[in-house]
Amino acid sequence: MQKTERQPAPNASRQDTDLIIGRNAVAEALRAGVPIDSVITASGERQGSIVPLLAQCREKGIPVKQADVRKLDFMCGGARHQGILAVVACKEYVGLDDLFTLAAQKGEPPFFIVCDGLEDPHNVGAVLRTAEAAGAHGVILPRRHSAGLTAAVYKASAGAAAHIPVARVTNLSDALRRLKDKGVWVYGLDMDGAPWCRTDLTGPVALVIGSEGSGIGRLVREHCDGVLSLPMCGRINSLNASVAGGIAMYEVVRQRQGLK
Amino acid sequence: MQKTERQPAPNASRQDTDLIIGRNAVAEALRAGVPIDSVITASGERQGSIVPLLAQCREKGIPVKQADVRKLDFMCGGARHQGILAVVACKEYVGLDDLFTLAAQKGEPPFFIVCDGLEDPHNVGAVLRTAEAAGAHGVILPRRHSAGLTAAVYKASAGAAAHIPVARVTNLSDALRRLKDKGVWVYGLDMDGAPWCRTDLTGPVALVIGSEGSGIGRLVREHCDGVLSLPMCGRINSLNASVAGGIAMYEVVRQRQGLK
Repeated sequence: MQKTERQPAPNASRQDTDLIIGRNAVAEALRAGVPIDSVITASGERQGSIVPLLAQCREKGIPVKQADVRKLDFMCGGARHQGILAVVACKEYVGLDDLFTLAAQKGEPPFFIVCDGLEDPHNVGAVLRTAEAAGAHGVILPRRHSAGLTAAVYKASAGAAAHIPVARVTNLSDALRRLKDKGVWVYGLDMDGAPWCRTDLTGPVALVIGSEGSGIGRLVREHCDGVLSLPMCGRINSLNASVAGGIAMYEVVRQRQGLK
Repeated sequence: MQKTERQPAPNASRQDTDLIIGRNAVAEALRAGVPIDSVITASGERQGSIVPLLAQCREKGIPVKQADVRKLDFMCGGARHQGILAVVACKEYVGLDDLFTLAAQKGEPPFFIVCDGLEDPHNVGAVLRTAEAAGAHGVILPRRHSAGLTAAVYKASAGAAAHIPVARVTNLSDALRRLKDKGVWVYGLDMDGAPWCRTDLTGPVALVIGSEGSGIGRLVREHCDGVLSLPMCGRINSLNASVAGGIAMYEVVRQRQGLK
């Protein structure tokens, strides 16, 4: 018997992940428009009924990752996966234009957060939570090398992921170019920049948060209009990405609310 | 054979905790002055050679917790614990006065962080990390209902715990009274207070961070000179404790560096 219904994996609570397991189940989810964060296939599994599924993923812009078949076995906790599973997204992604629409509806200058290479769901969740609380109009995540809108991110966001729109883009540099074309000032949080609170952030702004390991990517940094830095007054030289992001976001709040 | 040497538990890497297991080993650690975060005894185990050990813990101010014998079995991964184990601290705690000494040595007005009931090692670690980076002179933790200086906290602090002094106090209200007697202004981070950046934080200050679940305790809040609040501009009503703490700490940095 083939399992076709959508099912959480037996170890879903441990993984904080909602999975759709097996070819028919994934096909049905794609057909029904279930929001999918990514599809994982067993390495080398590119034949037979899996081929049209992968084509549909490409069409819908769903990232397809390859993994060793043992990883799929482990993720599924023994359920028969037939070389494919889909990670459910906790909600739909929106497009970049939708973020601008929300800002316009609120009558506020756009205020976006861009995560560059944050792969830890706890960090992305914490960023979503703070962004929502700071009144940002949306968060932009790259399709690759980033945690997506998974159940783990939803949980780490303390539910804020339900309220703040998230756009997913294929190429972060292209996305920043589009933002700049629409009049948004893009500021990266990184070392060797101006003090974070000396820049006027009351206009349309996007704050780019880099990963803790490697900071903001070189290409992405080249697309920033400026770099904002937090002084390191002690002996360590970096902050947790979500803490640094939170400090910068509330500087935007401070300036916009005229709390000087 | 009785195990007397200090030994990491077999599951230490999973628990991120360094344990000293068994009566003789704990006795030796106490005699040698190994920094100990807390001692855990099996419920009801208050007889024989354990009695003088507990007396020594009381003398040294080391918290003694009771737990079901099965929890000790699990923590020790099968090693023979004889009803007692000690959780090693990643470094020595200091006294409240030492924090003032450090501020005086630096020629700066005291800048302390107080954690009220933060039990999650990740949060306490993140607070230590941001406090060190923001140039705070020390962090104050209560002896009860708080994560201590364990290996898990050290790891979550990204090593900052090695650099920032941490004082542990029996009674947080008493400690705040002592701070106020020495001219420190105590501000709690909580709801329904003044905007966080409208208060002068350039003088001697202590920032009190409450737990995410229940905020700052009533008694502790009564000892605060003021409450600082971060505006919640979206639909959620709280931030991660370490993010909120980081925003307030960098407001102190902004004001003290004259970055207005």
